[in-house]
Amino acid sequence: MNYKVCATGNKIEKFYSDAIKEYQKRLSRFCNITFLNYKNFQKLHFKEIDKYYKIVISPAGKSLSSEELSEKIKEFELTGITDILIIIGNEEIHCNEVISISSMKMSLGLTSTIFFEQLYRAYKILNNEPYHK
Amino acid sequence: MNYKVCATGNKIEKFYSDAIKEYQKRLSRFCNITFLNYKNFQKLHFKEIDKYYKIVISPAGKSLSSEELSEKIKEFELTGITDILIIIGNEEIHCNEVISISSMKMSLGLTSTIFFEQLYRAYKILNNEPYHK
Repeated sequence: MNYKVCATGNKIEKFYSDAIKEYQKRLSRFCNITFLNYKNFQKLHFKEIDKYYKIVISPAGKSLSSEELSEKIKEFELTGITDILIIIGNEEIHCNEVISISSMKMSLGLTSTIFFEQLYRAYKILNNEPYHK
Repeated sequence: MNYKVCATGNKIEKFYSDAIKEYQKRLSRFCNITFLNYKNFQKLHFKEIDKYYKIVISPAGKSLSSEELSEKIKEFELTGITDILIIIGNEEIHCNEVISISSMKMSLGLTSTIFFEQLYRAYKILNNEPYHK
C-alpha cells in the first residue's frame, strides 16, 4: 500500500515533524508512506494524481474508531486500492471521502501526527500486534 | 486558573514531551499549568486532591469542539472553579466529568499533547486572538 500525506499550510513545528519521522520509520515495515508539507496545495504537482484514492481529513468528516480505520485499510487491500492520498489542511479538493480524527480544530502538525499515529495503530491492529504506547 | 495534568502509564516519547513543554510555555501567560507523567496513578500523592475539579480524558467521554472547550473554561472562571485536575490514562478514578478529544484510541503522549494544544487554542479563542498554526 502506498500513502502520500499532503499537509498544506504553514511549516509544521519541529516536535511534530520529529514525531512524523518516527512513525514513518515504524510504518515502513507495513507500507510505503511519504509526507509533504507545502504552503499551497497547488504547488503539489505530482504525476498521475488521478490514480489516487483521495481522503480529506476534516473535523466535519465521518468520525472513526481505531478499529474502523483498520477495517477500512483491510477493505482497500481487498478491493485492490493501492494508492491513497491523504489531504490535510485543504477541504476544498474533490475527494472520495472525508474522515474526521476529532471534532476539535487542530493545528496542521498535530493533525498530521495523529494521522500517522493512527495509521500505525491500525496496522498493529491488523497484524494482531499489541500497542501499549 | 491552575491546571494539573496527570498522564499515568509508560514514559512518553521525547517529541511529545517537547511539544508539551512548548505549549506549557505558550500557556504561561494565561494560566498555571503543570504536567506529571507517572507509571502508577497511586504514586501521585499531592496535597488537597479534593479541592480539584477532576476531568478524565477518554474516547468514551463527551466530545467537544474547540469553541465548547473555551466556553467551559469561561464557565469555570464564572463559577469560581480555580483548580482543575486533568487525568489521562486512568479512567477508573472518581471524577466530575469525562471529556473526549477523539473517538480514536491514542497513545498517552499524543493525548496529552492534544489536550495542551486544545487548551492553548481555547485560551486564544477566549482572548479573541488568531490561531493560525
